[in-house]
Amino acid sequence: MAAAPTSHQLAAGAPWSSLPRGGFRALTDSAPASVRFSVGRRRAARLEVKAAGNIFGDYFQVATYGESHGGGVGCVISGCPPRIPLTEEDMQGDLDRRRPGQSRITTPRKETDTCKILSGTYEGMTTGTPIHVLVPNTDQRGGDYTEMAKAYRPSHADLTYDLKYGVRSVQGGGRSSARETIGRVAAGAVAKKILKLKCGVEILAFVSKVHQVVLPEDAVDYEALTLDQIESNICRCPDPEYAQKMIDAIDKVRINGNSIGGVVTCIARNVPRGLGSPVFDKLEALLAKAMLSLPASKGFEIGSGFAGTDLTGSEHNDEFYMDEAGNVRTRTNRSGGVQGGISNGETIYFKVAFKPTATIGVSHSSAENF
Amino acid sequence: MAAAPTSHQLAAGAPWSSLPRGGFRALTDSAPASVRFSVGRRRAARLEVKAAGNIFGDYFQVATYGESHGGGVGCVISGCPPRIPLTEEDMQGDLDRRRPGQSRITTPRKETDTCKILSGTYEGMTTGTPIHVLVPNTDQRGGDYTEMAKAYRPSHADLTYDLKYGVRSVQGGGRSSARETIGRVAAGAVAKKILKLKCGVEILAFVSKVHQVVLPEDAVDYEALTLDQIESNICRCPDPEYAQKMIDAIDKVRINGNSIGGVVTCIARNVPRGLGSPVFDKLEALLAKAMLSLPASKGFEIGSGFAGTDLTGSEHNDEFYMDEAGNVRTRTNRSGGVQGGISNGETIYFKVAFKPTATIGVSHSSAENF
Amino acid sequence: MAAAPTSHQLAAGAPWSSLPRGGFRALTDSAPASVRFSVGRRRAARLEVKAAGNIFGDYFQVATYGESHGGGVGCVISGCPPRIPLTEEDMQGDLDRRRPGQSRITTPRKETDTCKILSGTYEGMTTGTPIHVLVPNTDQRGGDYTEMAKAYRPSHADLTYDLKYGVRSVQGGGRSSARETIGRVAAGAVAKKILKLKCGVEILAFVSKVHQVVLPEDAVDYEALTLDQIESNICRCPDPEYAQKMIDAIDKVRINGNSIGGVVTCIARNVPRGLGSPVFDKLEALLAKAMLSLPASKGFEIGSGFAGTDLTGSEHNDEFYMDEAGNVRTRTNRSGGVQGGISNGETIYFKVAFKPTATIGVSHSSAENF
Amino acid sequence: MAAAPTSHQLAAGAPWSSLPRGGFRALTDSAPASVRFSVGRRRAARLEVKAAGNIFGDYFQVATYGESHGGGVGCVISGCPPRIPLTEEDMQGDLDRRRPGQSRITTPRKETDTCKILSGTYEGMTTGTPIHVLVPNTDQRGGDYTEMAKAYRPSHADLTYDLKYGVRSVQGGGRSSARETIGRVAAGAVAKKILKLKCGVEILAFVSKVHQVVLPEDAVDYEALTLDQIESNICRCPDPEYAQKMIDAIDKVRINGNSIGGVVTCIARNVPRGLGSPVFDKLEALLAKAMLSLPASKGFEIGSGFAGTDLTGSEHNDEFYMDEAGNVRTRTNRSGGVQGGISNGETIYFKVAFKPTATIGVSHSSAENF
Repeated sequence: MAAAPTSHQLAAGAPWSSLPRGGFRALTDSAPASVRFSVGRRRAARLEVKAAGNIFGDYFQVATYGESHGGGVGCVISGCPPRIPLTEEDMQGDLDRRRPGQSRITTPRKETDTCKILSGTYEGMTTGTPIHVLVPNTDQRGGDYTEMAKAYRPSHADLTYDLKYGVRSVQGGGRSSARETIGRVAAGAVAKKILKLKCGVEILAFVSKVHQVVLPEDAVDYEALTLDQIESNICRCPDPEYAQKMIDAIDKVRINGNSIGGVVTCIARNVPRGLGSPVFDKLEALLAKAMLSLPASKGFEIGSGFAGTDLTGSEHNDEFYMDEAGNVRTRTNRSGGVQGGISNGETIYFKVAFKPTATIGVSHSSAENF
Repeated sequence: MAAAPTSHQLAAGAPWSSLPRGGFRALTDSAPASVRFSVGRRRAARLEVKAAGNIFGDYFQVATYGESHGGGVGCVISGCPPRIPLTEEDMQGDLDRRRPGQSRITTPRKETDTCKILSGTYEGMTTGTPIHVLVPNTDQRGGDYTEMAKAYRPSHADLTYDLKYGVRSVQGGGRSSARETIGRVAAGAVAKKILKLKCGVEILAFVSKVHQVVLPEDAVDYEALTLDQIESNICRCPDPEYAQKMIDAIDKVRINGNSIGGVVTCIARNVPRGLGSPVFDKLEALLAKAMLSLPASKGFEIGSGFAGTDLTGSEHNDEFYMDEAGNVRTRTNRSGGVQGGISNGETIYFKVAFKPTATIGVSHSSAENF
Repeated sequence: MAAAPTSHQLAAGAPWSSLPRGGFRALTDSAPASVRFSVGRRRAARLEVKAAGNIFGDYFQVATYGESHGGGVGCVISGCPPRIPLTEEDMQGDLDRRRPGQSRITTPRKETDTCKILSGTYEGMTTGTPIHVLVPNTDQRGGDYTEMAKAYRPSHADLTYDLKYGVRSVQGGGRSSARETIGRVAAGAVAKKILKLKCGVEILAFVSKVHQVVLPEDAVDYEALTLDQIESNICRCPDPEYAQKMIDAIDKVRINGNSIGGVVTCIARNVPRGLGSPVFDKLEALLAKAMLSLPASKGFEIGSGFAGTDLTGSEHNDEFYMDEAGNVRTRTNRSGGVQGGISNGETIYFKVAFKPTATIGVSHSSAENF
Repeated sequence: MAAAPTSHQLAAGAPWSSLPRGGFRALTDSAPASVRFSVGRRRAARLEVKAAGNIFGDYFQVATYGESHGGGVGCVISGCPPRIPLTEEDMQGDLDRRRPGQSRITTPRKETDTCKILSGTYEGMTTGTPIHVLVPNTDQRGGDYTEMAKAYRPSHADLTYDLKYGVRSVQGGGRSSARETIGRVAAGAVAKKILKLKCGVEILAFVSKVHQVVLPEDAVDYEALTLDQIESNICRCPDPEYAQKMIDAIDKVRINGNSIGGVVTCIARNVPRGLGSPVFDKLEALLAKAMLSLPASKGFEIGSGFAGTDLTGSEHNDEFYMDEAGNVRTRTNRSGGVQGGISNGETIYFKVAFKPTATIGVSHSSAENF
């Protein structure tokens, strides 16, 4: 290390930026209490941040955990208000809808995904304390050493996970697999319950595109859409004609061991006004972050989205009017229920694009765990 | 207030959920230290959270402030590492590029947007302490009372801001206007500097769509794109032919007092591997949140985005290969530089859709402050 | 609702602050696109934040959960680096040390507090994914209705918890009871492991005061203290003579059904330099927050603490010197290992005061759950 | 790098933990889509987190900035509700009380500390947008090179700051000096205003100990204490007799160029019930963190604090009773207004210990910047 400048050098005007970097300083000082010494920097441990990102939310916070191997997957929800009726029944329905193996067009699995609330409720009501939902793993796959012998599967998270953590994703627990969404679904069911109870919010999602089969924009009336219409077929597209086309498209590639992607449309009705903040926590920004954190998602658009860029301002603007109840409404809703980052009471609708699954043309035993 | 259940009632099995809600409890207890009393709940002050969302980031944190009226706009950046060379020059370039009134196709303004670093640097180097960048307001508009007389402008943030805060957005300072992006641009310039210095990252953005003029996907080589190509015309489209078409499109509507939107493509080269985490802080999720927090944004897509849903898995996957240096690379890059939420070293590219400006057909004096 | 001011009134200079509060605005505007209307504010749902505070940490994040009733208590740890050897054995020791009923001087209980790692490890090594540690509840007490019949116990959390949440603390799950510390102890064991492995940090704590029995300051050599010395008696005071006095003091009040408090001293050796930040995240501030979040804690002091206020600056200052290895050391350590909010490598030592347990003179069945 | 195990070795049962660490993997796979390759890890830039800690709060967030050199110090406050009357006057009083040089017993300085609100208010009312308060630096000291020649001053933050940041604290801007408290005081004044307006909270602080002069516990009636009593002398001790003793003690050491420390007692009256959460965000934990983040603080105690450990449970408990208004009150208040981490409506009182200033026996020109 270079010699440190003397006080004379400093007095002569040497800028401090020319001082040797880091840990070496030799200083003199005429005051009796000072000493001449050099500083060797003790090796600080490298406590690098490597695995954040498991917690979502500011007030209603969800910490998910769990992989394919190990005891189970689940979530801990903090910030749920007390006195909300809540039992396993509120979540099991959505967990069943998420579960693979429900039909021939999804990946076959044997997991039952049965959830159990281990804390946070008492006699069917939330207590305000953290809610822990556990879904035990019944179908253990992670111990299969032969998977270690495989190369990184193209477009999978394997390579990047390994580079970052030094651990193979699959053996590491498949945290990048879709099974981690179980915790999200459980927490989402609780959130939906609160929103429904407190504000009457209805949240629905359906498939609007599969491969090149596109549901026309006017085929679905967002104000009248029901869960039954969505659940009326295994593809979850509320229009029977297009649902069949989508199922045909999936069947075609499934037989060939290939995969296809699509788009999911999500709507939220009766959303109270005032959710979201200007600047960094705009409601659409928070939604975008949540959606792009889902496995295989590649795009998000709200309201008129990308198509709205084809319009002029006069064609795009939503005009105000006043309804009989004295509320300010908009005649059209290209905004998608959000203006300036804040919900305006109109129905929120957005779309999420999912790429085709990266796992293709492989046998059952090594298929990505869901 | 209803009578509270007696201990006998409770002993008889009345579930606690049937107890009267909230503040009333009448209890008896035989132990000498206890008393019979009722609890009146003192009125808790309503300290409602209303204006969060001004701070972005976890490690490199940016707090922006400022409106059209008042002393100025700017940002405070926390977490910038020390010893990074930094002066106003590093930021002024981007602030000038942001500024309205640069050409006939943007909104005319007189603000000069000259920035000043008030803390956090010493002799041109960061000190590790918070960096405060201030851009004083020179063109004061907010004090104009006649703006108060206007109705809520359609598709503007006015209505929702008022509903949430009880304050008109314009008089409140125009926090929902584009002028708040000044703080973002300044902080972004600092971030770009750090990334460039430490990792050699290059970040560029250009206009790829204006109204119905769409730059073809193969017109730009992301690996060869330069800032000069982008800055070669007032539209900032690197292809001269399409740039001209875009300028024509803007001119056409400008004359009519109308507005149009478009799409901006952003690329990042030489991104180190390992940025982003699986689950909630996937790199693309963080990018999506940042982009959808920009004024007028309606959509975000990364890599193949929405178009990728037209492909099958075999068509979409990016195959691995090893280059001469021994690095794992991908032959194609439909992933957009991110896999499993973590950067893989390939060029990141994404698109953001912007709706047509809501302010249309109005005179200069009441145009939204930029 | 009062009439809103006309534009004429506004033009005449009425300040906007005199406008009626909240949701009512009547505006006129001569521009053709505007309308006259009034805004009725739709009832926003009151999604009040009531139960935050279950998550600790920024990088190494711990979410605890669990109450006396329900399936169990535990924690989810995010941000643990991968490849740290970790099994239940690493945590069970500390959980056993925490458990009530270990000796006659603590509260008797039947819970075994056996932990199980349900996720985040593979073959005894952490994977970088969230670690879920569960301690099932075996001794169920919360279902006892007779507890509902009791008055608020003086100095307990009952009253405040009820006022805030509308739910009796005991029935709500005893989140304010000491059983929630199980999750903390488990997470603490993991953190200690990391610090030990990466930096050689040793953390020890012992009892230094019980009621009026005070261990003299010079009775313990912080540099030589061992866990065996602490565990050599049921009081966990490393000095046998004072340990006996403390045990006698506890025995005396126990027989009378009373309780006493005390002080715990904690030391950390081999702490790397550089932990903590100036300003708000000073290391001692973070320690203070952690310690004052423990049940029954009433005070925290680090280094010379309150006693240091008896000294002058010249008596208090820690002089620098350089040891043979070339490291800067301090001759004394009144700072307690932290200067300017940042660790300096010297042994950290601090004290936490615990008030006497509020539960006194009651039978076994209603004793506060530990 | 060692040869990676072949698939045969793996199949034979070699645990994955024996695989070479980090970046090297050679894998074979019989499936046609896989390749044999090795992974070299691209050097990730070390974007180490070094300077966090400048932001305080979750809902009402304060970001402070500024050093001795540079344009000024101040803060940006996010989350302040709209429509709170606020002008510079609300803050200047407290800034004047903080300013050094007010009397002979504090450090002499020439800074006027005049603040200016640059954003966040309009016509004297907050708008809900971030409030930026700037206090320009008038007395520039940081450019004095001769300070570079000094050795690390004992017990100062110099050494640790340098070790962590590689930058001398003084030149770096004195972020560890007391001048950074200006931003805190300004933000604190705003917070006090909100609490006063919304809840009628009164917050007062006074000096209760200087060196060995201790104000007796019963000398001050917390319920009757006024600001005038505190401001009645330069020491800010509300008891005239002890105030004089304290001033004498300070004068004695000042003449000798030495320094002494002391204790500040802070009270808060009319605090609404329900502030704070159980577990990690107990109100006293948040207070402790705030107080121990102040420069020179070494201890915090609330309610009975350390002295309470001398009492038994029966002596310590605060008995409940009901007042005429039907509110539950406590006869005594050893809890200090907080039980189970939540405020109970009684007066909060706590003490903070400050060590003697480390800067002693030096001339005016090199005194630590305040």
